[in-house]
Amino acid sequence: MSAIDERLAAFRGRRVLVTGGLGFIGSALALELVRLGAEVTLCDAMLPDYGGNLFNVEPVKDRVRVNFCDVRDENSMNWLVRGMDYMFHLAGQNCHILSLTNPFPDIDMNIKGTAVVLEAVKNHAPGAVVVYSGTRGQYGRSVKLPVSEDAPTNPLGIYEVSRLAAEKIVQVYNDAHGVRGVMLRLTNVYGPRSQMKHNRFGVANWFVRQALDGEEISVFGDGKMLRDFLYIDDCVRAMLVTAATPAAHGQVFNVGHDRPVTFLELIEGIIAAAGSGTWRLTAFSKERAAQNPGDYYSDVSKIRRVAGWSPAVGLTDGLSRTVEFYREHRDRYWGG
Amino acid sequence: MSAIDERLAAFRGRRVLVTGGLGFIGSALALELVRLGAEVTLCDAMLPDYGGNLFNVEPVKDRVRVNFCDVRDENSMNWLVRGMDYMFHLAGQNCHILSLTNPFPDIDMNIKGTAVVLEAVKNHAPGAVVVYSGTRGQYGRSVKLPVSEDAPTNPLGIYEVSRLAAEKIVQVYNDAHGVRGVMLRLTNVYGPRSQMKHNRFGVANWFVRQALDGEEISVFGDGKMLRDFLYIDDCVRAMLVTAATPAAHGQVFNVGHDRPVTFLELIEGIIAAAGSGTWRLTAFSKERAAQNPGDYYSDVSKIRRVAGWSPAVGLTDGLSRTVEFYREHRDRYWGG
Repeated sequence: MSAIDERLAAFRGRRVLVTGGLGFIGSALALELVRLGAEVTLCDAMLPDYGGNLFNVEPVKDRVRVNFCDVRDENSMNWLVRGMDYMFHLAGQNCHILSLTNPFPDIDMNIKGTAVVLEAVKNHAPGAVVVYSGTRGQYGRSVKLPVSEDAPTNPLGIYEVSRLAAEKIVQVYNDAHGVRGVMLRLTNVYGPRSQMKHNRFGVANWFVRQALDGEEISVFGDGKMLRDFLYIDDCVRAMLVTAATPAAHGQVFNVGHDRPVTFLELIEGIIAAAGSGTWRLTAFSKERAAQNPGDYYSDVSKIRRVAGWSPAVGLTDGLSRTVEFYREHRDRYWGG
Repeated sequence: MSAIDERLAAFRGRRVLVTGGLGFIGSALALELVRLGAEVTLCDAMLPDYGGNLFNVEPVKDRVRVNFCDVRDENSMNWLVRGMDYMFHLAGQNCHILSLTNPFPDIDMNIKGTAVVLEAVKNHAPGAVVVYSGTRGQYGRSVKLPVSEDAPTNPLGIYEVSRLAAEKIVQVYNDAHGVRGVMLRLTNVYGPRSQMKHNRFGVANWFVRQALDGEEISVFGDGKMLRDFLYIDDCVRAMLVTAATPAAHGQVFNVGHDRPVTFLELIEGIIAAAGSGTWRLTAFSKERAAQNPGDYYSDVSKIRRVAGWSPAVGLTDGLSRTVEFYREHRDRYWGG
């Protein structure tokens, strides 16, 4: 058993709440937590067009408790958190372009929603460890590559501002109220169980759908922008291991892949894995360009050092697993 | 006429909206704007225990328009901003310890309220310049003194998180939507027209009240903590001159004093100016200690360089003007 597996054994018999638990990352966490022997409660508001999908937890449906609930619902959250040992807070507004026309859902769901969760934990489950998932978008344009946790945080949109503010809230509850928190900044994550109905978030998964449908994939700009793409299983493992590592509590960590690729490399990998699809270049809209941070990839040396985590799944492997999943379950994710 | 006076002449005949316009800083701005010949509208929600006080604008009451309104009231804000050339956004929750028991007013008034204001400007007054007043608390503990604008921002409380998030929102509207914004981080400001009924914000002014009442002033810790205290007229001038300086638009500036003093020096100055009052040391509560950033003073070289502003009023002078004002108008600010 590896050092990480040993640490993950800590979840056996522990009570775990996952907000956004029927979504992409939440459901993957749920599956792994069940495998590790945790008692899992999933809270999800099932907002239309968001990621919640009961099929995501089909394999463990008799071994998790599902509680439909919005994280902004203070009274329900105050009850849900009772007795929990760990909380993974994933519920939120995820579309980074919505705020161009309406900034309020980001503020309400991501900032206020996070405060509701932290107040509930502070008052009703003060011993729980809370893992918060923010985004690499909190950095804005990269000043230096790879981007480490002490880089300036200059978000380019209200979505990213809301994620940064929520992270800072978790930090304050950790420092001032003793609610142990782990603050993650996730890079682009891809893999099974994402919403695939629209392209407003989850760009890599959306390309997978397009390739499987034999469509032409539009690549913004020249396609040479660098990103790191992380397979969902690696992301889940990062969340679990930081939660189970006391030295990681109170800390901010990048969760990404140390091997960046261009968008074109990603897309060619997807097309190869799917055996279908084509691509063409297209210009950025002015507003999208203003919100695009340019090259980004994560410096993951801190999480490696503190929690012993490194990405284990390469892009080729991750993409073929992703393609395989959606090919098999396509009717559960887009049009039957 | 100095270079700054020339620039301030730009306000003559211009339409200016001040949110929180009946409060401490807002009313001081109003007085100066009237003197400069601007058409001034003051918006204030008159929340109990906040700073709104009609007596603050008594000297110009026939030359300003007062509109009672909460900045969270979207429809009213959409009407109020129409035709404005400048907006000074000062309305908000100002108590930095309220969030220890209730984080929601900060999120609602300071973050959502700022988004309401910026949406209103974007949609109904896109040519207006918006000046936003944040706080030095956005930095948290000083990494290096004096603290410059590129220092890390690690707020110690939800109040400070809300101010940071609001600042980032103004930046996003500047960068992505072309709404020109100036983002200020104010140090402790003191002087006439502050609320003086309670000590939950405005520490220097509160000491002035205690000294005038011949009370014993409690100093937290050893009294040797460093701060810079800025007289209200200097603060107002910084807001006006950055608004009127195109090179300052889109920028973050510290607004502080380049001569820091200890709390004890401040208090002894106040007692000397008042001719009454005493002081004693007292221990921090645990929660207050966790939210206290330690020594802080502002690096004001950026605003000096870009906008030509420097503090002009020294502490002794500022304190004696402050004492004089409250001695004369005490019954308008605390018990008649």
